Amino acid sequence: MGNRWGTGRMEAFSDGVFAIAITLLVLDIRVPPSAFDDLWSGIAHEWPSYLGYATSFITIGGLWLAHHAIVRRLQFASARVMQINLLLLMAVSFLPFPTRLVSEAIRDSSAERAAVIFYGACLLVIQLLMAAMWAAIARDRSLLRPEVTDKEVDAIMRAATPSLGFYAGVIVLAVVAPTVAAFGYLVIAVSAVLRARGDQAPAPEAATPG
Amino acid sequence: MGNRWGTGRMEAFSDGVFAIAITLLVLDIRVPPSAFDDLWSGIAHEWPSYLGYATSFITIGGLWLAHHAIVRRLQFASARVMQINLLLLMAVSFLPFPTRLVSEAIRDSSAERAAVIFYGACLLVIQLLMAAMWAAIARDRSLLRPEVTDKEVDAIMRAATPSLGFYAGVIVLAVVAPTVAAFGYLVIAVSAVLRARGDQAPAPEAATPG
Amino acid sequence: MGNRWGTGRMEAFSDGVFAIAITLLVLDIRVPPSAFDDLWSGIAHEWPSYLGYATSFITIGGLWLAHHAIVRRLQFASARVMQINLLLLMAVSFLPFPTRLVSEAIRDSSAERAAVIFYGACLLVIQLLMAAMWAAIARDRSLLRPEVTDKEVDAIMRAATPSLGFYAGVIVLAVVAPTVAAFGYLVIAVSAVLRARGDQAPAPEAATPG
Amino acid sequence: MGNRWGTGRMEAFSDGVFAIAITLLVLDIRVPPSAFDDLWSGIAHEWPSYLGYATSFITIGGLWLAHHAIVRRLQFASARVMQINLLLLMAVSFLPFPTRLVSEAIRDSSAERAAVIFYGACLLVIQLLMAAMWAAIARDRSLLRPEVTDKEVDAIMRAATPSLGFYAGVIVLAVVAPTVAAFGYLVIAVSAVLRARGDQAPAPEAATPG
Repeated sequence: MGNRWGTGRMEAFSDGVFAIAITLLVLDIRVPPSAFDDLWSGIAHEWPSYLGYATSFITIGGLWLAHHAIVRRLQFASARVMQINLLLLMAVSFLPFPTRLVSEAIRDSSAERAAVIFYGACLLVIQLLMAAMWAAIARDRSLLRPEVTDKEVDAIMRAATPSLGFYAGVIVLAVVAPTVAAFGYLVIAVSAVLRARGDQAPAPEAATPG
Repeated sequence: MGNRWGTGRMEAFSDGVFAIAITLLVLDIRVPPSAFDDLWSGIAHEWPSYLGYATSFITIGGLWLAHHAIVRRLQFASARVMQINLLLLMAVSFLPFPTRLVSEAIRDSSAERAAVIFYGACLLVIQLLMAAMWAAIARDRSLLRPEVTDKEVDAIMRAATPSLGFYAGVIVLAVVAPTVAAFGYLVIAVSAVLRARGDQAPAPEAATPG
Repeated sequence: MGNRWGTGRMEAFSDGVFAIAITLLVLDIRVPPSAFDDLWSGIAHEWPSYLGYATSFITIGGLWLAHHAIVRRLQFASARVMQINLLLLMAVSFLPFPTRLVSEAIRDSSAERAAVIFYGACLLVIQLLMAAMWAAIARDRSLLRPEVTDKEVDAIMRAATPSLGFYAGVIVLAVVAPTVAAFGYLVIAVSAVLRARGDQAPAPEAATPG
Repeated sequence: MGNRWGTGRMEAFSDGVFAIAITLLVLDIRVPPSAFDDLWSGIAHEWPSYLGYATSFITIGGLWLAHHAIVRRLQFASARVMQINLLLLMAVSFLPFPTRLVSEAIRDSSAERAAVIFYGACLLVIQLLMAAMWAAIARDRSLLRPEVTDKEVDAIMRAATPSLGFYAGVIVLAVVAPTVAAFGYLVIAVSAVLRARGDQAPAPEAATPG
């Protein structure tokens, strides 16, 4: 109450953090000079780095789509929304660290399990923060644009739930089969991007009300 | 006098620098391969890096909120405001350096005190520059949007003052108890974010004048 | 159908990724301290890094111009366009990795060929994704602004084709003459920037229809 | 003729590159762990890094102000302006490399001269590209907004000239006194920021025509 923020600069700032976090991921991919004698197999040997890069890139891409879908429905942000958003951005730009850890540890039988579980835990925290942000908005409907319907609010909430379950499942899987679980995160990320819904009415030339 | 700037690109440029400085912080968090035998304790062992990451991230997040609160009240920037803003951005994007220093030195009894004091001094300089920017604006009221009241100008100035005192206090504390002081910076940052005021009138549908 | 996106944040996010990928390239240019005794020749010795930097910078610059030319003609993005765009950004921000590989391997006779072919393959994938994005748009004309003519749609498609052929040709060249091919990528990038068409009617004061 | 670009995305992209280049500079500042026994003198010992950081940061800040002053007067960009702008951005984001070189070499009597001259040469190239961009605009007045006067066009051109002379002078100075010249670049950068002119009419409430 009585403490609201415009969403313009929050959107610009969040976009910046998403774009930079996504781009920094490449800095950790390197072929050591010792592999230059047979560079093709040296390049192939780095597959855990490409897996980590693709998984984190597509995950952040999906988060950006979900974030976009939330922010464009806001009329204002409350102090609580700004705070959760800051925590969310902090978790997203932390992601290059566990990504690197998985890439380095995936061929190390003693370290692999811990790395894959830690990475999954970070992804789960991010999903929880995204859900918490939407829950905070849903509790204070005056933050939403007037045209946003109850059905839409519920649909967005429901869209967030499967990811939570998937991540929890894959983390459990990581205890017994960490390499499989590492690919599992990629599958979740790809399916989140494929499920993302657009933000425009279907046929604007002939839009029917509601 | 006779030398004014629009605030649009200053805002975009500042947002970019804040977003990048905040995101680069993760590059310094690494678990050495030697810790892979027991990766969970290797991850836990890096707690000073997480402390540094969280402190600097939340500090920069709070600075971004404060910067936002200032710029949105401006009609124009004077040459002096542009210059102080450039110094402020220079100090903000310098922050990854002392952050790394604290993370590396916090377990080194000979280096810890110096690192924590140096970090605090950088934070104090940033707060001073933020206060100086607002003071420069308050002295030339024609820079402000017409609807900004004297009360608001004073309130923003007063909001900046406690941080200056807190930082000075924690720097003194760092002389005797540097580890405690390192957590003190985090407390200041969190409380600055929690105290941040929104930028919209409480109930825009039924806004009462002033 | 029924799933459309506004292009504003897609444009802002893509611009951010392009700008960051282009700027990170410099991080890989270093003169080793051992070359400080004769620094001028140490600086000159790094020419493969400058070649890689210039090639990737101008390539990304040309991609940004082409991306700009596409997005400004869109009224909406479909889910498919958003997905291809995400893949395209993933490929563009991957580019610093093969760039570094070419810079490091160009003086190593056993590694040079593989590095130059791998770099060319990455560039070819990027061009294919750009062409695929435009093909997806051309198939669903309701995504385009009403004023975009069939002639324009075809012209953009045709403009993309020579690059595909050039890259394929230079990759074949890389098998026999990898160093020459490395310069070939630079030539393609420069010529793509020189061929880029503006996005405004020639003489807006006296624009004639069509 | 007949090939024009809107300036919106060029501005956003350029701002991004300027903001990132300016922020990456901090990544090269490090106190080696061997200096942790006496950290205060270890911090002080890094003064060449701070000098390089401040010089490049303020230089890029001044370039951003000058770039802003140019772009805001444009109605369109020609293909030539877009190409020179791309070269300018390529030179600006190259700057972290010579900056690091100066910071590392300034205490090495054999390498210092070369590093300082090379850094100055990079700054001179940037200034030449900025002047070339403005010259290309001045030759095609239809690119400028109608309200821009001949006097303004000449004033911007004249404002660029002293920097060219200063840089040439300091490069010559670097041959005999490289350390002094390194501070000279800082002086030029600070004076360029202090000389920067605003972009708004002096008193908008009572603006007189022209």
